[in-house]
Amino acid sequence: MKKKDFKGFPFIEGGVCAAKGFKANGIHCGIKQNGDPNKNDLAVICAEKPCTAAAMYTTNKVQGAPIAVTKRHIADGFAQAVIVNSVNANTCNADGEEKAEAMCEALANELNLKPEDIIVASTGVIGQPLPIEPIVSGIPALVRGLSVTGNTAAVNAIMTTDTVPKEVAVEFVIGDKTCRLGGMLKGSGMIHPNMATTLTFLTTDCDIDAGLLKNALREVVFLTLNRVSVDGDTSTNDMVCILANGDAGNAKITKDDENFAVFKDALYTVLMNLARMMARDGEGATKLIECLCDGAPDDKTAEIVAKSVITSSLFKAAIFGEDANWGRILCAVGYAPVDFDIHQVYVTIGSDKGVILVCEDGAGVGFSEEEAKEILSEEEIIVHVTIGKGEGFAVAWGCDLTYDYVRINGDYRS
Amino acid sequence: MKKKDFKGFPFIEGGVCAAKGFKANGIHCGIKQNGDPNKNDLAVICAEKPCTAAAMYTTNKVQGAPIAVTKRHIADGFAQAVIVNSVNANTCNADGEEKAEAMCEALANELNLKPEDIIVASTGVIGQPLPIEPIVSGIPALVRGLSVTGNTAAVNAIMTTDTVPKEVAVEFVIGDKTCRLGGMLKGSGMIHPNMATTLTFLTTDCDIDAGLLKNALREVVFLTLNRVSVDGDTSTNDMVCILANGDAGNAKITKDDENFAVFKDALYTVLMNLARMMARDGEGATKLIECLCDGAPDDKTAEIVAKSVITSSLFKAAIFGEDANWGRILCAVGYAPVDFDIHQVYVTIGSDKGVILVCEDGAGVGFSEEEAKEILSEEEIIVHVTIGKGEGFAVAWGCDLTYDYVRINGDYRS
Repeated sequence: MKKKDFKGFPFIEGGVCAAKGFKANGIHCGIKQNGDPNKNDLAVICAEKPCTAAAMYTTNKVQGAPIAVTKRHIADGFAQAVIVNSVNANTCNADGEEKAEAMCEALANELNLKPEDIIVASTGVIGQPLPIEPIVSGIPALVRGLSVTGNTAAVNAIMTTDTVPKEVAVEFVIGDKTCRLGGMLKGSGMIHPNMATTLTFLTTDCDIDAGLLKNALREVVFLTLNRVSVDGDTSTNDMVCILANGDAGNAKITKDDENFAVFKDALYTVLMNLARMMARDGEGATKLIECLCDGAPDDKTAEIVAKSVITSSLFKAAIFGEDANWGRILCAVGYAPVDFDIHQVYVTIGSDKGVILVCEDGAGVGFSEEEAKEILSEEEIIVHVTIGKGEGFAVAWGCDLTYDYVRINGDYRS
Repeated sequence: MKKKDFKGFPFIEGGVCAAKGFKANGIHCGIKQNGDPNKNDLAVICAEKPCTAAAMYTTNKVQGAPIAVTKRHIADGFAQAVIVNSVNANTCNADGEEKAEAMCEALANELNLKPEDIIVASTGVIGQPLPIEPIVSGIPALVRGLSVTGNTAAVNAIMTTDTVPKEVAVEFVIGDKTCRLGGMLKGSGMIHPNMATTLTFLTTDCDIDAGLLKNALREVVFLTLNRVSVDGDTSTNDMVCILANGDAGNAKITKDDENFAVFKDALYTVLMNLARMMARDGEGATKLIECLCDGAPDDKTAEIVAKSVITSSLFKAAIFGEDANWGRILCAVGYAPVDFDIHQVYVTIGSDKGVILVCEDGAGVGFSEEEAKEILSEEEIIVHVTIGKGEGFAVAWGCDLTYDYVRINGDYRS
């Protein structure tokens, strides 16, 4: 999938290892009995020195045990390493926190850190006891293999129903220093806007104040990860975290100035691309749907409308069928809980193959079904909804609803 | 599908013709070019004399033209006939209201009524001009065929992606008089709680005050039709209406007394069964999912939780796969926008084959996967979620998410 430029930052390789001073690794430790030995299930990210850290978590009231533990560990604003497993979410288990702490202790022992320096995350099936032995037994080998090219093994370890690894990194300049910010993300089901809706790990060598790092993460997550929906289900385990080690040697960003703006733009570029990759690789998806809403009285209204369109099961199924059934777009706009004048609604559907106007002043306009089919044959579909004459604007990302979504989720546990 | 008893009212045949003094009919008038001549697309319901009438409509801000017209016609609290077409929703068309009025005029002419006595409804594709000629040309034959057994032809005419007709009627006693209340309903996609979410037509020969009729309809719709979701999409055209002609000769119900309670119970029995039939016949569905939530601080909280469970795509797909993936139930409970203590959550999954406890005090309990498979092999699945020690209680109905939902909606317009 082609990366999308935002403000001209060069894309670089390396994911969570793109920034100086970070190593990573991933291994198959065998959390699932008779699991595929070529699919990793345990990853580590490690910095050479303590990092400023910030994180955001799912808004689901049922939360995975690792989230409670990470919240405690990160309370002081610092962390140095991340441990994460797939296969089992360690959620709704009586001994969940104990085991999440045990993961941190085992990693801390190997790295000669304190458990409180570790961020822990899990993803997978909810409500089955986490097999802790393979994890603890695997950690020594996991740590031995840490390297500056370990991002590939690490991203493999966090994939569940993802079909492709998702990594993005960029370079940017603060003062006279080049900084790097990169990350990895997993989807692809139980994905719905409301906090990160997925696991995302970010690293940067930019030197930045802890409060500003937190503010930047929050602001950008709301514009990117929180604008994605695959299936309307907000997971119990989602987390996005960022570690900043200052190794780029830039003059520390300590206030809301132009350098902070550059940092946020770089973060936006990485998270926007990860968000698009997540939507495109939604469970069973064959297409990315991007919905732009403008003309709204404010950005929040635009966001509600854009999200309503990309979460409509009926519209998602129509896009899978490459059917320009724009009535379903109007329907989804109409049940969004916002006020607007239907007679001011315009809708276009587009892709790299062209753009067609399908609705003007709230009523249908004639268009060539053949041209529509051609446009919808592409993998990235852009729906543009104008709902009035205001300045409010938002983008949201989703995917089509397919047979494979049903297949994947009809028997996920087996 | 077996009808579900509520307060012991005998079920009777006849649908919208079960009540005395009502006739109905349905024909194929040919709204769709080369449509199946054996599938009706135009229906009428007609009373011998003016009826007390009440209706409720979709909350979608994009509303079909027939809704605007019906609202005007019913403003005086009276109506005598209903005309409804399928195939085309007559929504988002510049000339929509004009054509909806034309349908009423044509029927009024044939029946020797005023257009303002007519309720009009449409269902089908949004945003394509309604072919009015076949409707107007068909109305004379439609009216000639009116009969007290015409409910079967009428219910056939309102079906779209429905696979079975949906009719329920009951008898009840007010004073010393036997009354009847019956109706028909269509699903099966774009179905989501928030007002009727479907087309439903009800008739009764019970004599009842107009204000009480309206109150009863509102109260019972919130407990039945508004508790159903097939796909989370609230349609633009949904309507439920009831006509009461008083032909049973009972002492008119004029206050909130025990007779009014009986009337509401009869209405609940009919609408609850229609709601269950709609959910069971949701697009592509193979199973009915009934979610009971209790222990909530109030009924509204219980309703929000129950609806959250039955609308979860992930849980719906798991039920299709007959997979007791109860973690997805907990996840859906957790993202419902209500407060509760996860440590007080109990969940059971049941059917006619038995019941298993899957979650106790918010954590998983061991259960036999074999027994779970056996239970989930049934067509009616009951999920019971207890979220505390309160008195609040609610039931909601949904269906599984299947390959056929995707197939049906991937190319609906063709």
